[in-house]
Amino acid sequence: MREALSLARRAAQAGEVPVGAIVVKNDIATARAYNTRQQSKDPTAHAEILVIQRASMVTGDWRLIDTTLYVTLEPCPMCAGAILASRIPRVVYGAADSKAGAVDSLFGLLNDRRLNHQVEVRSGVLAEESSRLLKSFFGKRRQQISERCESG
Amino acid sequence: MREALSLARRAAQAGEVPVGAIVVKNDIATARAYNTRQQSKDPTAHAEILVIQRASMVTGDWRLIDTTLYVTLEPCPMCAGAILASRIPRVVYGAADSKAGAVDSLFGLLNDRRLNHQVEVRSGVLAEESSRLLKSFFGKRRQQISERCESG
Repeated sequence: MREALSLARRAAQAGEVPVGAIVVKNDIATARAYNTRQQSKDPTAHAEILVIQRASMVTGDWRLIDTTLYVTLEPCPMCAGAILASRIPRVVYGAADSKAGAVDSLFGLLNDRRLNHQVEVRSGVLAEESSRLLKSFFGKRRQQISERCESG
Repeated sequence: MREALSLARRAAQAGEVPVGAIVVKNDIATARAYNTRQQSKDPTAHAEILVIQRASMVTGDWRLIDTTLYVTLEPCPMCAGAILASRIPRVVYGAADSKAGAVDSLFGLLNDRRLNHQVEVRSGVLAEESSRLLKSFFGKRRQQISERCESG
């Protein structure tokens, strides 16, 4: 999770909402990614989607069996859905997302018995660091917008 | 939707689960896609994700405002989440998906007031054709598997 946090910091440096993710298989990082939505102008370019696409490319299989996905923020509906679609068996996430979290906060997509896949979830790992990074990012962005409004 | 169905038929010909999707803006098709999960070995390569990525590339904006997404099958959680993430305002889909549908069947992700975006949805358009195409695809696949088992 420390590595995922360091990826999230790189996202922040690039002006992106700071979220980082890693897929680990047999204790080895198979793929790494951070959110690049602004830069790539792609609404699907969340850290989890990118890391799942990369891990599938590396393993040559759309089923990411025997893997763990580490992500600094609770996945949104799209990313929770991608975790289901890729059959990832374990997810560890950092901060909860009260506005769009689809694992525990708003929906429980990863543990719905009506679906054909359920996921073992651990939450709150390095949550404070992850949350602090997000708050600092949005704080700075609000300040920039307000400065732009004042000067414009 | 006829064009989306014809894309779904191309998916079937390529050995993929037959789902097709189109993003339309000002009555013009901005992007087209069909499911390519097997071929690309990418679990996120559903028709809707691909068409959203392509439409964003064409428009140069991650927000697909003033667009309508046509898709032959009810979106799954990942694809419904991508529709939310891209702020698509209207979705028209064909057949319902009782196993993974996240618009009406299992979840109502596109009209949840707790989220920051809601979508106008029309369902059941050319549903029978879309459903027939899916059933015929899975029927043939089951037959191939059973023939393989008998000969093996």
